[in-house]
Amino acid sequence: MATLDEVAAFIATEFPQTKCVVLSVGNGGATLTHDVGVDELRPGGTVSGPVLMGVADVALYVAIHGELGITPMAATTSLTVNFLRKPDGDKPIVAECKLIKVGKTLVVGEVSLYSQGKPEPVAHVVGTYSLPPRRG
Amino acid sequence: MATLDEVAAFIATEFPQTKCVVLSVGNGGATLTHDVGVDELRPGGTVSGPVLMGVADVALYVAIHGELGITPMAATTSLTVNFLRKPDGDKPIVAECKLIKVGKTLVVGEVSLYSQGKPEPVAHVVGTYSLPPRRG
Amino acid sequence: MATLDEVAAFIATEFPQTKCVVLSVGNGGATLTHDVGVDELRPGGTVSGPVLMGVADVALYVAIHGELGITPMAATTSLTVNFLRKPDGDKPIVAECKLIKVGKTLVVGEVSLYSQGKPEPVAHVVGTYSLPPRRG
Amino acid sequence: MATLDEVAAFIATEFPQTKCVVLSVGNGGATLTHDVGVDELRPGGTVSGPVLMGVADVALYVAIHGELGITPMAATTSLTVNFLRKPDGDKPIVAECKLIKVGKTLVVGEVSLYSQGKPEPVAHVVGTYSLPPRRG
Repeated sequence: MATLDEVAAFIATEFPQTKCVVLSVGNGGATLTHDVGVDELRPGGTVSGPVLMGVADVALYVAIHGELGITPMAATTSLTVNFLRKPDGDKPIVAECKLIKVGKTLVVGEVSLYSQGKPEPVAHVVGTYSLPPRRG
Repeated sequence: MATLDEVAAFIATEFPQTKCVVLSVGNGGATLTHDVGVDELRPGGTVSGPVLMGVADVALYVAIHGELGITPMAATTSLTVNFLRKPDGDKPIVAECKLIKVGKTLVVGEVSLYSQGKPEPVAHVVGTYSLPPRRG
Repeated sequence: MATLDEVAAFIATEFPQTKCVVLSVGNGGATLTHDVGVDELRPGGTVSGPVLMGVADVALYVAIHGELGITPMAATTSLTVNFLRKPDGDKPIVAECKLIKVGKTLVVGEVSLYSQGKPEPVAHVVGTYSLPPRRG
Repeated sequence: MATLDEVAAFIATEFPQTKCVVLSVGNGGATLTHDVGVDELRPGGTVSGPVLMGVADVALYVAIHGELGITPMAATTSLTVNFLRKPDGDKPIVAECKLIKVGKTLVVGEVSLYSQGKPEPVAHVVGTYSLPPRRG
């Protein structure tokens, strides 16, 4: 297991360009926020789909580190996203991730994405990560 | 909205061959069980994947009726299933469905499937249903 | 690699209850048919979704055997199905599977499902199978 | 239906920040490229997953315009991506999209993504778009 500080430091080093901020990690989950600015918007003033998918992907990655310790070779194998409601263009995105299976070679988790302060999710993601073989 | 009795009667009439039993419906969700016998097993003594997918599909359908009233023309448009753990071959399947979006033309929900009495899900499903156009 | 006869014999032994018939296997794919009778129909005279998902699942399994030799421990890890058109209730289902990645631990493939003799697919499936660790 | 020039002009106006270049559109499909530079890379020198998902999303959108005419209100409702192989960090991404259903309210399509010049796909996407109601 890795602490919030360890995971945040790892993400900052490995993904210096990400705007994701890790708020909490542990207990098989993680919560992140991602600011929304002009780069994240698409016509109509809503947050673009790939931004939402990217935040969900990082949230899963963070939750895995929290559960298994820093695991840089974990790699996304699949993601399914359902877009549910239009995100607000002037609110950060909040991602709440919960792992639903942590196996030896595969991890499955789900992520609910919100516009900060709104109760209903803007998108829902289920994703799988493959883990590197462990050395005995 | 439809009550448990109304939904159970509808399912019994429309799908006389299903083994699904509706335990509860309402509040944007539903809980069902499905017995497991020799017809549901595959080699290794575990419940076959299509049985799990079928129970999840009915659970979504039941939850939609509970939320919108009996809506026979609702039709599945997509399902994504992740198989997580081997179901026990000698325990009924329990499906817990929660709708995450009820729109005008699409409903999205998720279903966690369990071997009865076990805390960890055997499969997770996200599905979408399309709704018939409503008459003014 | 396994031949059509080897795969058909394996499926008949392991899944005696399946109605799937393997028409061809090899070159990273497989073609199957599945008869449609009263057990496969749902209200409206169309083929039920779980039947389509089940046929797709077997088609992926068959294609894997054709590619890697008989691999009984291959297990479905995920399936995503999109239902596209109503299948005819009086025509067999035809499944055409093509593997798109054969890795060391995961196989990904897609399946197009048809009502026999019709040019447009009734459903499309993408699925992943995990492979057992190989012995040196 | 819209021509390549019409679709390219629409994309350039609506999504001035995208690096996607439309190579062809029509016959129910589209082909795009997307340059890869330092912004698209993640540790290990490979193209990041959200970039691939974003290109696939635009490819579906372009194919829909080619099929139905410019339809700005078409909106992504779901995407399932399977990551298959590591993309080369020094080659553009090529996306080949094929629509598999064009309905009244939903369009379903698939996209194969390649590193330019390589025969095997790096990722596979199935996505659905909802269409705005048409005026009589």
